[in-house]
Amino acid sequence: MSKPACYSVKAFATPAAAAPLAAAVIERRQPLATDVQIAIRYCGVCHSDLHFARNEWGFTHYPAVPGHEIVGTVTAVGAGVKKFKVGDTVGVGCLVDSCRACPSCRAGLEQYCDQGLTGGTYGGWDKHLNAPTLGGYSQEIVVTEDFVLRMPANLDLAAAAPLLCAGITTYSPLRHWKVGPGHKVGVVGLGGLGHMAVKFARAFGAHVVLFTTTPGKAADAQRLGAHEVVVSKDEKQMAAHAGSFDFILDAVSAQHDLNACLNLLKRDGNLTLVGAPEKPLPVAAFPLLLRRRSLSGSLIGGLPETQEMLDFCGQHGITSDIELIRMDQINEAYERMLRSDVKYRFVIDMKTL
Amino acid sequence: MSKPACYSVKAFATPAAAAPLAAAVIERRQPLATDVQIAIRYCGVCHSDLHFARNEWGFTHYPAVPGHEIVGTVTAVGAGVKKFKVGDTVGVGCLVDSCRACPSCRAGLEQYCDQGLTGGTYGGWDKHLNAPTLGGYSQEIVVTEDFVLRMPANLDLAAAAPLLCAGITTYSPLRHWKVGPGHKVGVVGLGGLGHMAVKFARAFGAHVVLFTTTPGKAADAQRLGAHEVVVSKDEKQMAAHAGSFDFILDAVSAQHDLNACLNLLKRDGNLTLVGAPEKPLPVAAFPLLLRRRSLSGSLIGGLPETQEMLDFCGQHGITSDIELIRMDQINEAYERMLRSDVKYRFVIDMKTL
Repeated sequence: MSKPACYSVKAFATPAAAAPLAAAVIERRQPLATDVQIAIRYCGVCHSDLHFARNEWGFTHYPAVPGHEIVGTVTAVGAGVKKFKVGDTVGVGCLVDSCRACPSCRAGLEQYCDQGLTGGTYGGWDKHLNAPTLGGYSQEIVVTEDFVLRMPANLDLAAAAPLLCAGITTYSPLRHWKVGPGHKVGVVGLGGLGHMAVKFARAFGAHVVLFTTTPGKAADAQRLGAHEVVVSKDEKQMAAHAGSFDFILDAVSAQHDLNACLNLLKRDGNLTLVGAPEKPLPVAAFPLLLRRRSLSGSLIGGLPETQEMLDFCGQHGITSDIELIRMDQINEAYERMLRSDVKYRFVIDMKTL
Repeated sequence: MSKPACYSVKAFATPAAAAPLAAAVIERRQPLATDVQIAIRYCGVCHSDLHFARNEWGFTHYPAVPGHEIVGTVTAVGAGVKKFKVGDTVGVGCLVDSCRACPSCRAGLEQYCDQGLTGGTYGGWDKHLNAPTLGGYSQEIVVTEDFVLRMPANLDLAAAAPLLCAGITTYSPLRHWKVGPGHKVGVVGLGGLGHMAVKFARAFGAHVVLFTTTPGKAADAQRLGAHEVVVSKDEKQMAAHAGSFDFILDAVSAQHDLNACLNLLKRDGNLTLVGAPEKPLPVAAFPLLLRRRSLSGSLIGGLPETQEMLDFCGQHGITSDIELIRMDQINEAYERMLRSDVKYRFVIDMKTL
């Protein structure tokens, strides 16, 4: 396969793990037959952008362009594209391709592709350019149509951008574990992921309890949909809820006490991690043994479910609570994100690039 | 409730955490209306007997009488007993009572009783004598009939004793996770629990792979029913099996690398712990996130499932591989158990007491 023709676009890139992000020029391929070319209007800022930019997971190629909560407008389509036309409002999330042949891909669970997922960031590999994929902190992106999503027309587009990662990452496990009316559901951590989990769990009809280390977040959690708020450092409050949860979504990516959370589950209850703390978390056997509890992980979501989630958000008017920033505020935004000083997602207005 | 009449029986007890077991005399209640009095013929020796005797879990009352793999003959029954008569061959496992009212008890999952399980050892509390329960290293035991099991007539009784704990502990999670034909199932550790897990997983029709740190156990594992044996310290062998298992039963109660085991699972695969290592095990988020894997625990089994397991063993001729010992060899047996020098369960011949 020869390298396709390319063109240059402006972007913000990290040249090295310890360097700040700065303006750069990158190459995109001219749309191939099944490609959709998208002018990016907004791009969400995920905590994992920071992990990735700083090579905290160890697989970053430099220069790296983060950004996988991408919304924009179709500017061109390849000759074979059937689902999109110029002018459509579309989204692109973490996935930009997959093997499409393994059992997970055939099941629409491309995030669990046996060949490894092909991320638009996250150290993904562009098979056309034979180069690392480059993400959404850029003017344009070119993506094969099967990995492009249709955005609901009624949502504020900037506030909808985080649905492509924070949204699907929390929607998918809540659906997989069949959260619904009659369930008592915990959400641990009120950040970009957690605040979406609260909105979804509430929309699915569950009784929602938000666990936070920050008492000051209580009012906001209730505004977002939580029925109750528990300060997780308060052993009395934690004990009062022991053994009472059907499901807990743990959205904390810092080190934290998982055993205290596991003890909140009923028999056969499940706690699913969607954050990825840097170091392994100590898990005691007894909280798992004593009530046949389980601890799982969940990673974003496949394309069919991501479209389902976007449609659900359109129907229920669900978006992320965001703070819109300029591209040149990104390094400051990372520092604020590290201090959890964001309610609840930064989104870059890409016309400021 | 006044304390019922009691009588004395011989036993082997631990007077303190650091002391060896020694002959003692203990009290049993005279059978109440729904009680079954059992002359104990054999009692299995579980690794948790040792944890319990030495107070390694921190809740042992002294003097402590371990032993919860009890088989024997009914010698008397209370006036209200309907299911058993004098002369019946019966078993008693870890459970000797429960609240009988909570959702778990009503579902026949008495091991997950909301009030906490009432163990015949394990720091259980005898509500009749208002004293710690005393286990099976004794001549006789008196148990309410709902917690007494019927032993299949065709099984060697000494070899059947470990079914009451090692058997049900491995049978229950294999059933709960629906292990059967077409499944690739791993068993980690070939000890008292592991060797039963291999037998059951094979009997359920799965493809069984035994993971061990001891290459010398391969031939024995195959004799017991394993189709394949993997030396878990061999990274190449482990890598060859990565992402291929539907279910893994982890029967290791020592510290070990759980993440290496989790990486063996397919998407949506489950690893269930049945051993209880003393210290928390470090669990990395990525092995869970990347294929939506889950890590669970499972604790023995309820009364209906324990009877089902015994009946299954009767139908399929399944018992434990045992080494019969005299009561006065128990302290030596504990030392050998700590060195994993037992194939695969010690069983005490109680007529030697």
